[in-house]
Parts: sequence; C-alpha cells; structure tokens
Amino acid sequence: MVKRPLILVTNDDGITAPGVRALIEVMNTIGDVLVVAPDSPQSAMGHAITINSTLHCSAIEITEGPQKEYSCSGTPADCVKLAVNELMDRKPDLCVSGINHGSNSSINVIYSGTMSAAIEAGIEGIPAIGFSLLDYRWGADFEAVKPYVEQITRTALIHKIPKDVVLNVNFPVPKSGSIKGIKICRQAKAYWVEEFDKRTNPMGREYYWLTGKFINEDRGEDTDEWALEQDYVSVVPVQFDLTAHHAMQQLNTWDFD
Amino acid sequence: MVKRPLILVTNDDGITAPGVRALIEVMNTIGDVLVVAPDSPQSAMGHAITINSTLHCSAIEITEGPQKEYSCSGTPADCVKLAVNELMDRKPDLCVSGINHGSNSSINVIYSGTMSAAIEAGIEGIPAIGFSLLDYRWGADFEAVKPYVEQITRTALIHKIPKDVVLNVNFPVPKSGSIKGIKICRQAKAYWVEEFDKRTNPMGREYYWLTGKFINEDRGEDTDEWALEQDYVSVVPVQFDLTAHHAMQQLNTWDFD
Repeated sequence: MVKRPLILVTNDDGITAPGVRALIEVMNTIGDVLVVAPDSPQSAMGHAITINSTLHCSAIEITEGPQKEYSCSGTPADCVKLAVNELMDRKPDLCVSGINHGSNSSINVIYSGTMSAAIEAGIEGIPAIGFSLLDYRWGADFEAVKPYVEQITRTALIHKIPKDVVLNVNFPVPKSGSIKGIKICRQAKAYWVEEFDKRTNPMGREYYWLTGKFINEDRGEDTDEWALEQDYVSVVPVQFDLTAHHAMQQLNTWDFD
Repeated sequence: MVKRPLILVTNDDGITAPGVRALIEVMNTIGDVLVVAPDSPQSAMGHAITINSTLHCSAIEITEGPQKEYSCSGTPADCVKLAVNELMDRKPDLCVSGINHGSNSSINVIYSGTMSAAIEAGIEGIPAIGFSLLDYRWGADFEAVKPYVEQITRTALIHKIPKDVVLNVNFPVPKSGSIKGIKICRQAKAYWVEEFDKRTNPMGREYYWLTGKFINEDRGEDTDEWALEQDYVSVVPVQFDLTAHHAMQQLNTWDFD
C-alpha cells in the first residue's frame, strides 16, 4: 500500500454538489487529493466524451482544505482524461467518483456519469471506485455514509482492486435507521419502463419529458438491489470488457449464408 | 422468424448521415422500417439520456422509400426510448443502429452512441445490432458492406440473438480489396492514450482539444481488432450485465474492518 496515496476525485453532479464535498473530506484523511469535476451537473451522461467541442478547465477553491480543485467544462469521463493527462504529474493511485445524489445500482450503472468516470479511470489502469447514495436530493445526508466510504477506500487500497475491474458502491437510506454492513453483489437484472410526459409549448409545438418506472424482477439475494433493500451497502465489481463470452459458442453455430 | 419484421432504425451520426441512409435501404428489403434518429451528430455520447431537458421529435422525409422517419432532439438512447414508448404501436422485432462512420470495435464500444442505441434496445428486450464501418469520413463508401448488413440481419432474425445480448458488428476497409468473411470475436483489450492539444483563445483563455492514439496490445486471434486487420467483419456479442463475476470470489475475501 502506498503510504500517502495520490487520489483523483470527480463526480457527475458538478463540483459544487454536497456529495463530492463529502467525498473530498473523507479522501483528505486518506491521501493527497486532486479534484477535477464538471462545472455543471452531468447526470445520466453515460460514457460520453467531448470530441467535437473544446474543453475548459479552471483552478478554483470552493471549500477550505489541502486539496487542489479544478472545474472542467466536460463530462465526467473528460474530467478523468484531462486530470490524468494534463493536470497530474503522475498517475493517481486511486480515482473515486461521487458521492452521487441518487442510485447507480443495477441497470443504472449503464446511464451513470459517476460510474463512467470510474470506468474511464479503470480503462486507464487506475484503481477506481464510484460511490452513490440512494437519495437524489441536493440536501441528502452524507454524514452517515462517510465512515463506509473511508472503510471501503482503505480496504481497496490494502487488498487492491482486481485488474480491469472497478467498484460500484451504493449506499442505502436505511429503513431500520442504520446500515447493516457491506455486501459484495452482482448487478440485478432490472430495467426502466419509460413514461413520456407529452406537453405542448406556448408556440404549439409538442415536446416530451422522459420519466419512468423502475422494474426489478430479479429477486436474487446476491444482487445489489436486494442488499440495498435490506439496508446493506452494495459493492458490485464492474468490468468494461462487454463481451458476452457465454454467447460466443451459440453465435459460432450460426450459418451466415 | 417473423415474415415481415418491424424494424427500428437509428444511429448516432444524425438522421442525414450517409451511413443511416445505407442502413435504411437494406432494411427496406427485409421488413417494415421506422427511423427515429438524432437531428444532429451524437458521436461519443456513450449511453447518455436526456433527463434534465425536453425532447422534440418531428416527422420528416429525407429520401424516398416506404419507411417512416422521425428526427429527434435527443441522444441515440433517447431515440430508442421515444420510438418504443411513443411512436410505435408495438415492440419492434429488431433494432439496428448505424451504419456508423468510424470504428466501434474493442474499447470504442464504451464511448459509442451507435452501440448505446443498440444496448438500450437490448435492455428493453428488443433484438439489436449495431453496425459500424472503419471509415469515419462522411463520404465513406457503404456499398461494399450492404450485402453483409443484409446477411447478418437475416441470419440474426432466423437464429435469434441470445437474450440480454446485442451484436456489435464492425466492417473493415479491406486492404486486400475485398472482405474475407465474418468472424465471431471477443472485444480486444485496447485503449486510447489521450493527447490534449492545448490552445489559447483570442481572449487569452486556455482550452483543450481531446485527441488520442489507439493502443492495442492484445494480439489474440479471437479479437475484433485481429479480425478487422485481416479483412474480416467482426461480430462481438455484447452484454449489459457489467458484473465482473470472476472478481466476486476475490472481493469476498476482503476484510472490511
């Protein structure tokens, strides 16, 4: 374990979000912290990167502390790329993203800007963890999860995250009043049923708001959704090799004629 | 196999791109086609969705043909959601995305708007294929790949794509002059080394352009990069369960204290 690790902090709710402020506070107790985060909310940005437009980046100070901070015009994945390639003298020992205001469990990982930053770091060979709290409100209470953020981060630094894997950590808002513990989980097979709210603007043109209902029919007790329902912290190891290896044999029987 | 399948066509280069025009032409020979595609280029949008802004959608006609077409203000994933939930009377039998101007092989699948549309369809239980040509130019020649697009689509409709899997199809620009065949592949372990081009704007403020170099150290002859180099079409089965199942045992030995 590195004695005083160099830690890159980012998020997708924007650099002023209370979630990233809580994460910075915890990381300052563990290592030397550089913050490179979006200058505006980038939720549901998936793994978007900025290739057809320019990126801006400014040193700023939002809260006191030893950390250095940069506000960046891009997506969470852009922030990681920019930090590693332009702003840091050496590769960080760890990248943490979040704490997201809202869940990134199960299928939400696919749409998540928080997790895209962690995955981008993973692709670049940097151990990475995304943290999310199941409370989307700006005023969500991050105090109760701080000890778990610290515990998981320190444990990951000691045991080392497996190669080509990043951690997707979600915190419940415990119904029982307190978190019961930490569970290693698989991603539940859940999905969203979209509901578009169709409206007409003052000029008579129709437009839509995307809304939806979350459906989880996967009752497996090894899933993140189950753990969170039971007031456990869920930790899902996530990979970026998307190959469905189990399907290759079947596809090889196809007759392309 | 459905006699006259209902096919949803989308892309990420925008509805006027030659690549999607080629795809529509092929799909018109196979089934009943509805096109719902972005009104402007959405490359490298990853799996972004529009939740903090409104979506617009207009019926349009760009080229002659039996297909119905809608131009949409959102991302590729938005287009699929909107099509399935608002514009179609029933779930399509197939969703095809592309033909992308440029590669979506190996790690590019993570950043790809083309593949995010296919993956979104897959999540919604719709068989889906993303097609990409390794030529990013607007004037890229799609004629040579059309027979393969048709062959792969018809084969997929007959054999049926496995559940929770979507196909990532990439076409080479063959050095030998002609495509050698089709190979089922795994995603190569490749990555981008970023190079930021730092400039100063007329007002004296610094900004960046993201550029990069593609690095593939995975010489496996079962990879998409290998197949494409050898003038084969690569077909990678892609999953959206991102769980690194192989890492769970190791994480379960971690001592969270």
